[in-house]
Amino acid sequence: MKIAVLGSGMVGNAIATKLVRVGHQVMMGSRTAASEGGQKWASAAGKSAQCGTFADAAAFGELVFNCTSGANSLAALRLAGAQNLRGKVLIDVANPLDASPGKAPTLTVCNQDSLGEQLQREFPDARVVKALNTMNCEVMVQPSLVSGDHNLFLCGNDPGAKQQVANWLCEWFGWKRGNLIDLGDISGARGTEMFLPLWLRLWGVMGNPHFNIRVVPRAEKS
Amino acid sequence: MKIAVLGSGMVGNAIATKLVRVGHQVMMGSRTAASEGGQKWASAAGKSAQCGTFADAAAFGELVFNCTSGANSLAALRLAGAQNLRGKVLIDVANPLDASPGKAPTLTVCNQDSLGEQLQREFPDARVVKALNTMNCEVMVQPSLVSGDHNLFLCGNDPGAKQQVANWLCEWFGWKRGNLIDLGDISGARGTEMFLPLWLRLWGVMGNPHFNIRVVPRAEKS
Repeated sequence: MKIAVLGSGMVGNAIATKLVRVGHQVMMGSRTAASEGGQKWASAAGKSAQCGTFADAAAFGELVFNCTSGANSLAALRLAGAQNLRGKVLIDVANPLDASPGKAPTLTVCNQDSLGEQLQREFPDARVVKALNTMNCEVMVQPSLVSGDHNLFLCGNDPGAKQQVANWLCEWFGWKRGNLIDLGDISGARGTEMFLPLWLRLWGVMGNPHFNIRVVPRAEKS
Repeated sequence: MKIAVLGSGMVGNAIATKLVRVGHQVMMGSRTAASEGGQKWASAAGKSAQCGTFADAAAFGELVFNCTSGANSLAALRLAGAQNLRGKVLIDVANPLDASPGKAPTLTVCNQDSLGEQLQREFPDARVVKALNTMNCEVMVQPSLVSGDHNLFLCGNDPGAKQQVANWLCEWFGWKRGNLIDLGDISGARGTEMFLPLWLRLWGVMGNPHFNIRVVPRAEKS
């Protein structure tokens, strides 16, 4: 499959590399075609790997991953172009983190809105599925890094798109179907994005980012 | 021990009832001494149970639980009175949920501040520990309702107060020490309060409120 990965940071690198490894043709998109991050990744990742602008990549992909930094995702996807996203599944992995130096990390949007909802409103013809944004990028593409069962949340307005994404995440990244939790429509992104402050604290407690959470059900009545 | 439970809703009822059951003297505080909720609870809960105003209860308790609705907690604790909270451990269980009818649930404070921080700033001589606010109230006082291991987060600026609270939650409510996670100073309350939107979605998915989350660590390297 031809897949666009928008963003050449750690998250984009982890996802793009895994997608090439499982047999896809991947174009990494950046603000400029000459982006150092994109070029470096493409030259290291083999012949199925290319890089280009956000628009080049979005035009190339049948499926688009948004791995840009969340505070800049709307701008990046505008550069990608609505016409290049039309009808496509857009997996939104980003968190709208304002990581300005000297500030405690905060979200640039939350509570009454979310990045996932902003993207779906801005690109009504894209099939936005929010997923993977509650964990470290290495865990996203290799869930076995975390011991035993743990959960991946997804949400979006298009049930068919969510179904496809669920299939792909299981097949390509190794998630167990039973560990995927569908939170409903795209406004569920408020919940998964607002989990970030707790995740950041837990990172400090755990001492490494290779953890995740599991939703533990009610005990069986004895 | 003499304990104040401020708030006569579901959370206050669950906590006050459990505290009486394990042998404490409990005064439930409400806006008015004649509060129907407080009177009803006190008459049902036996001779160790009393009710009164927020100020009556806070003056009575050596330890204070804030179980008022989060959107009104600051006002309730002002009625309780700074002089009645001075030097005491204040366990803040509340979430600042705006549950106005006809609105999607949102938080009245989040992101750059939290209810826990507001309370600690407003009552600098109270020893605020944020705890228990990431789960249903029946799970708070009976963790065995949820199967196996699952976590309780606490945070606060006073390490001694956190240590006491940890001891009490294990001894009185049945938490396992290894399932408690100390998130650091009181600003960790942003994380646990902002978990609420995800918790509310999960409630819908799980079909009942008797679930919790477990933080799953990195797999051992094989």
